[in-house]
Amino acid sequence: MINELKSHKSFAGKTQFWEHDSSATKTKMKFSTFMPHQGVRSCLIWLSGLTCTDENFITKSFVQSHLAETQTMVICPDTSPRGLQLKGEHDSYDFGSGAGFYVNATEAPYDQNYQMYDYVVKELYHIIQEKFGVSDRVSIFGHSMGGHGALVIGLREPNKFKSVSAFSPITNPTQCPWGQKALAGYLGDNAAAWRQYDACELLKAGNTHPHQILVSQGLADEFMVEQLLPKNLEKACQNAGQDLVLKRHEGYDHSYYFISSFLKEHIVFHLDALREE
Amino acid sequence: MINELKSHKSFAGKTQFWEHDSSATKTKMKFSTFMPHQGVRSCLIWLSGLTCTDENFITKSFVQSHLAETQTMVICPDTSPRGLQLKGEHDSYDFGSGAGFYVNATEAPYDQNYQMYDYVVKELYHIIQEKFGVSDRVSIFGHSMGGHGALVIGLREPNKFKSVSAFSPITNPTQCPWGQKALAGYLGDNAAAWRQYDACELLKAGNTHPHQILVSQGLADEFMVEQLLPKNLEKACQNAGQDLVLKRHEGYDHSYYFISSFLKEHIVFHLDALREE
Repeated sequence: MINELKSHKSFAGKTQFWEHDSSATKTKMKFSTFMPHQGVRSCLIWLSGLTCTDENFITKSFVQSHLAETQTMVICPDTSPRGLQLKGEHDSYDFGSGAGFYVNATEAPYDQNYQMYDYVVKELYHIIQEKFGVSDRVSIFGHSMGGHGALVIGLREPNKFKSVSAFSPITNPTQCPWGQKALAGYLGDNAAAWRQYDACELLKAGNTHPHQILVSQGLADEFMVEQLLPKNLEKACQNAGQDLVLKRHEGYDHSYYFISSFLKEHIVFHLDALREE
Repeated sequence: MINELKSHKSFAGKTQFWEHDSSATKTKMKFSTFMPHQGVRSCLIWLSGLTCTDENFITKSFVQSHLAETQTMVICPDTSPRGLQLKGEHDSYDFGSGAGFYVNATEAPYDQNYQMYDYVVKELYHIIQEKFGVSDRVSIFGHSMGGHGALVIGLREPNKFKSVSAFSPITNPTQCPWGQKALAGYLGDNAAAWRQYDACELLKAGNTHPHQILVSQGLADEFMVEQLLPKNLEKACQNAGQDLVLKRHEGYDHSYYFISSFLKEHIVFHLDALREE
């Protein structure tokens, strides 16, 4: 049962907010959508970053203007399960609630609910097909932690997701403080499991995506050097033979003002890829 | 002294947040701006609605995309003084903080600080000229309570503001619950003073604006019938000989999803008017 919480006409289509009982997380989960007025043939999944909910992208990115005259919807899941009181879950902005990192946790007590990889790849994908009538024309993109999620999901499921892009992604989480904290908390000290959630490690292990990958990075991004490590992704793609376009933008920071400035380019990238199918 | 609090490169220009000591309100006041990269020759003032701050419009409207390649900036003041503890100031969403109604209050204790008409018309206008180097090419627009503010200010200062537009404005505050509560609280029972802050009453009294006025109204707006009264404005403009274009939009509500859907039309309207100068 998927309940509509709010619906706003926008750009002749509909911006909507939804809630459902998730089988993956065993909690209620929220997501938002924009449906263009001409009906829907394909779908973009947007994964948000740390501290975000299903509302940030749909409110601040202006994605509606770019999809208004297409037949492509966007769906934006929340960044973690909500409504739980697990040990440590609400103590910091970069772990637990608002920080699911799109992994399937194996460490107690998170292993019961923090199954965000399966939530996106299986449950949300199923909703896109069953509830919204899209076939297999689905692509994925995201920002920061969500850029990490999009890269990892795209590299692990290259047939399921037709194209992948990211703004300011955490490219190599096993090598940065945000990633190390999250992977330790959700996966324990299982190094093989960590590598399954690291785009650079997946590329090293031979995972690639058949389509070019697009990444946009602001050069005034306060997290670039310590957390995002775009050069590591560049090198891993080169070594793996993965087609990557990494665009660096002078003066732009980590905020949604950067995302909205270059969103149109990412939308066009995905629409092109989805048309190729 | 005007302090920059934050600056984000966006659309090759800058989205900025500012704070200063206001002489009109005798408090600190915040405002936001977007500066296109080509420099600035003219300015739009955006007045927000109930509960908003200087952040709503600049975050949710996507105004940056429409001004990016112009030489027109936008400036968005807060909706009331902040940081005070006046009697009743924080008790309701539609009076006091976040609800200044763009009037010069005469009732104690609000008369000392709630001077939002002068803040916008004199102090902010001065900042636009002195700090940002705009001459007299200034127009004004807003939403709901801010639409009321824009209409009232434009009708009272037709030479100072080259064009006026509004989304879902409170057109006739002396005749609706929001307006009656605010005007009573800020102005007491002074009926003549009330009329100075009511667009329909100003038109009846002979105030007009030399330029056409543009108003956009969603027909699924939950406040239209009781609070906004667009027909009253239409009638007052007809009787006064004021050129008004009132656009009604089926299915749209009172939210920023409505504003962003039709913002481009308002921007073009103002840019045309400012070019005429």
